[in-house]
Amino acid sequence: MHGNERSCYNGGVGKGDDTRQGILAAAGELAGQVGLDGLTIGMLAARTGLSKSGLFAHFGSKEALQLQVHTFNAERFVAEVIRPALREARGEPRVRALFERWLSWASAAGGCPILAASFEFDDRPGPMRDRLVHDQRDWLDTIAMVFAGGITEGHFRPDADPRQFAQDLEGVMLAHHLASRLLRDADAERRTRHSLDVLLAAAASAPHD
Amino acid sequence: MHGNERSCYNGGVGKGDDTRQGILAAAGELAGQVGLDGLTIGMLAARTGLSKSGLFAHFGSKEALQLQVHTFNAERFVAEVIRPALREARGEPRVRALFERWLSWASAAGGCPILAASFEFDDRPGPMRDRLVHDQRDWLDTIAMVFAGGITEGHFRPDADPRQFAQDLEGVMLAHHLASRLLRDADAERRTRHSLDVLLAAAASAPHD
Repeated sequence: MHGNERSCYNGGVGKGDDTRQGILAAAGELAGQVGLDGLTIGMLAARTGLSKSGLFAHFGSKEALQLQVHTFNAERFVAEVIRPALREARGEPRVRALFERWLSWASAAGGCPILAASFEFDDRPGPMRDRLVHDQRDWLDTIAMVFAGGITEGHFRPDADPRQFAQDLEGVMLAHHLASRLLRDADAERRTRHSLDVLLAAAASAPHD
Repeated sequence: MHGNERSCYNGGVGKGDDTRQGILAAAGELAGQVGLDGLTIGMLAARTGLSKSGLFAHFGSKEALQLQVHTFNAERFVAEVIRPALREARGEPRVRALFERWLSWASAAGGCPILAASFEFDDRPGPMRDRLVHDQRDWLDTIAMVFAGGITEGHFRPDADPRQFAQDLEGVMLAHHLASRLLRDADAERRTRHSLDVLLAAAASAPHD
């Protein structure tokens, strides 16, 4: 799917879009280890075996490379987390699907690269920070919209606040990321699921109201 | 206070502990912008006007500088957040004091440097990651202990789980950090306080049990 969607971006480095995807995937892995700002074209050349001058000609600058790695990650996020969740039944099932898919995404090697970048760039003005602000707002909008669908369906109380839920769910995910990735806490996932259950129970429409 | 506590660490760069504290504060500010791993001795020399060779002789390596900047931040955190909160009345008032002081700490310029470093180093094995794991565990232990005091006081339910509360409170704080620092969301603090109120209400001992 990505191959067709992004063939227009294809540049001169490799033999086609697969090569490009491979380079960006390798760059994403490196960024998972050294941070997006620690990623250099020299490092990427060493990892991929491609020439530094070829990579430089293709990406133009370290900043452009960072942005393209982030775009690659963000498109994967939409394809693996958001789009499949939006196919689930509206309301609580869709909220749970979004959460479960996020959990799988963040449990993959390297954790969630978008969260990592969000903390890395929160104080660094520039195009990368602007993109992260844009994408994080979209993500919170998506959570709020999916939650609001649960109000319409009668799963959640009419006075529940979708923006509050979005911030709270993001908190549950961030705490999971820290507990599982930094602390390697074996109980992190159990606690994270419990946190979601408590959030959803607090939002649930009371049957006897 | 810091001056007296840490005079034994004083090295040969400056005229005493105040100089040392000033260098570490400047290094902490730089790290807030470029990340702890982006911080170099050359950058610190340019910021402070001290010689690179003098700083290198003092700190020994970039890694040693990183660790000392983190130690400086962690000691400030204990002095500004933990110690004053532990002077408040046990139970819910102490939980709220810990939270309020954390909120002030994270609202200062640069946000919470320990959270930033925790995301930066979660996949980089080494002494810095080891220190962050150690300090984050201590912090979660502190939250759990303060919460457990609220069970003893009868403020919280006997079956409430202090480790669960610690992870949830960390999530509230992380979401606040992202909403306020990356997104500059004017409603972040209002929502963050609401999240704490909901967490505490869920843990509250039911008066009619």
